[in-house]
Amino acid sequence: MKIAQFQMPVTDDKNANIQTVKDWCRKIKDEQIDLICLPEMFNCPYETSKFPQYAESNQGETWQVLSSLAKEYAVYIVGGSIPEKSNGKYYNTAYVFDRNGIQIGKHRKMHLFDIDIKDGQRFMESDILSAGNAITVVDTEFCKIGVAICYDIRFPELTRLMTLSGAEVIFIPAAFNMTTGPAHWELLFRSRALDNQVYLFATASAQNPDADYQSYGHSLAVSPWGKIIKQLDYHEDILINSVDKTYLKEIREQLPVLKHRRSDIYDLSLKSKV
Amino acid sequence: MKIAQFQMPVTDDKNANIQTVKDWCRKIKDEQIDLICLPEMFNCPYETSKFPQYAESNQGETWQVLSSLAKEYAVYIVGGSIPEKSNGKYYNTAYVFDRNGIQIGKHRKMHLFDIDIKDGQRFMESDILSAGNAITVVDTEFCKIGVAICYDIRFPELTRLMTLSGAEVIFIPAAFNMTTGPAHWELLFRSRALDNQVYLFATASAQNPDADYQSYGHSLAVSPWGKIIKQLDYHEDILINSVDKTYLKEIREQLPVLKHRRSDIYDLSLKSKV
Repeated sequence: MKIAQFQMPVTDDKNANIQTVKDWCRKIKDEQIDLICLPEMFNCPYETSKFPQYAESNQGETWQVLSSLAKEYAVYIVGGSIPEKSNGKYYNTAYVFDRNGIQIGKHRKMHLFDIDIKDGQRFMESDILSAGNAITVVDTEFCKIGVAICYDIRFPELTRLMTLSGAEVIFIPAAFNMTTGPAHWELLFRSRALDNQVYLFATASAQNPDADYQSYGHSLAVSPWGKIIKQLDYHEDILINSVDKTYLKEIREQLPVLKHRRSDIYDLSLKSKV
Repeated sequence: MKIAQFQMPVTDDKNANIQTVKDWCRKIKDEQIDLICLPEMFNCPYETSKFPQYAESNQGETWQVLSSLAKEYAVYIVGGSIPEKSNGKYYNTAYVFDRNGIQIGKHRKMHLFDIDIKDGQRFMESDILSAGNAITVVDTEFCKIGVAICYDIRFPELTRLMTLSGAEVIFIPAAFNMTTGPAHWELLFRSRALDNQVYLFATASAQNPDADYQSYGHSLAVSPWGKIIKQLDYHEDILINSVDKTYLKEIREQLPVLKHRRSDIYDLSLKSKV
């Protein structure tokens, strides 16, 4: 399973953002990529006030492009996220497509990013967005994959529940900032991969010096041993790595933490599915 | 709340190990320490085959010494751990004492360390030990504290449940090795502190070149922001740090992850208490 992560530039121009995705898909067409992962809010600046203006209904313009690209290049696409409009509400939504361009999954960010750091970042997603209510694990020809978005990663319950549902590879479109990025980016993604013995791919947009919100970039791939396989810096680039299922199996045999969970003592479970 | 962590040498000589604790308590008697934390298996080499020989029943010799020291120096003691014998079974057990030498808590390691890394560490605690069945959170004059032992830290459920029970400071007597230490020691303790926005103090024994099991050492103190406050290396030493409850409160206000948990969607709870 060969994965390409697009750490792409995101501008105010939605068409230009979509064009970047098209161009980059063409650029890697001979690399035998199985799955492409895009960043959070890849068609729209990461500013709450702009989400309504860029939002699309189900099967909107951006969805159509992603579905076509998945089919054209016969790749899975974890479509980063875009602002979704539905029944007068807005969501931060990732669509997942198979090699035929069929939508096989959809994740609405479940934990909204409301933060107010002293002398640091302030951001209130809940001013505009509504939260999703479902954990997203999808079947592929390789294995089950989990999808969640950015701030979702701060909640160990979510990645654990994905793992217990069978996910072996987890994709996180994200956009950390210059406060939380240096402090927590590596730590969070490495620890979730280690705790759950999964491969984890976090994909951020490149840093845009003109943007209101400065993305930390640093898209990375982490092994089930919690080791960073490869990581980018702030600049636009494509990260290409492979999943080694034999290695994942070895790790789970040698250090069987998932078997050692005391599920006789504590219980982590879903209360509802929407 | 001022804390001293004893990264002490542990030898085959139980009396010598106990004497070290006595000596080190005297050494810091003028430092106005509130709580002393000892390493995992501080009175006994960390070898499963030796646990029965060093094991003590409740209120045994080592327990008596710790109780007396707590009273003599008017400090709390998180008594690392020792092999406990009870009804023909053996446990890896931490006793907790208040400033009067009264036992206020007892944690039996809940997740037994069974690991078999290719070209690395092999260790099977469950050959000899039985597992505890309770999460340990204890009241002190400062705040609630959680106590767990070494491999317990690999299970995010446990530290989360301690936090949900009100623990703001967590103590982990531990003894990582030269395979898992370099790979995971910092990562695990930093991420649990960050996820739960607690202070976390992990205390290991010093490395003993003559021992069968090579302790990684590296006792550390981590802030609720996931930052290492101070960390030792392999050598014997005492780590002294303070808990800043105002800072903990600030972190929890600025980045309120504990409030953002989607407890309407997922539920983490205790199934039984023993």
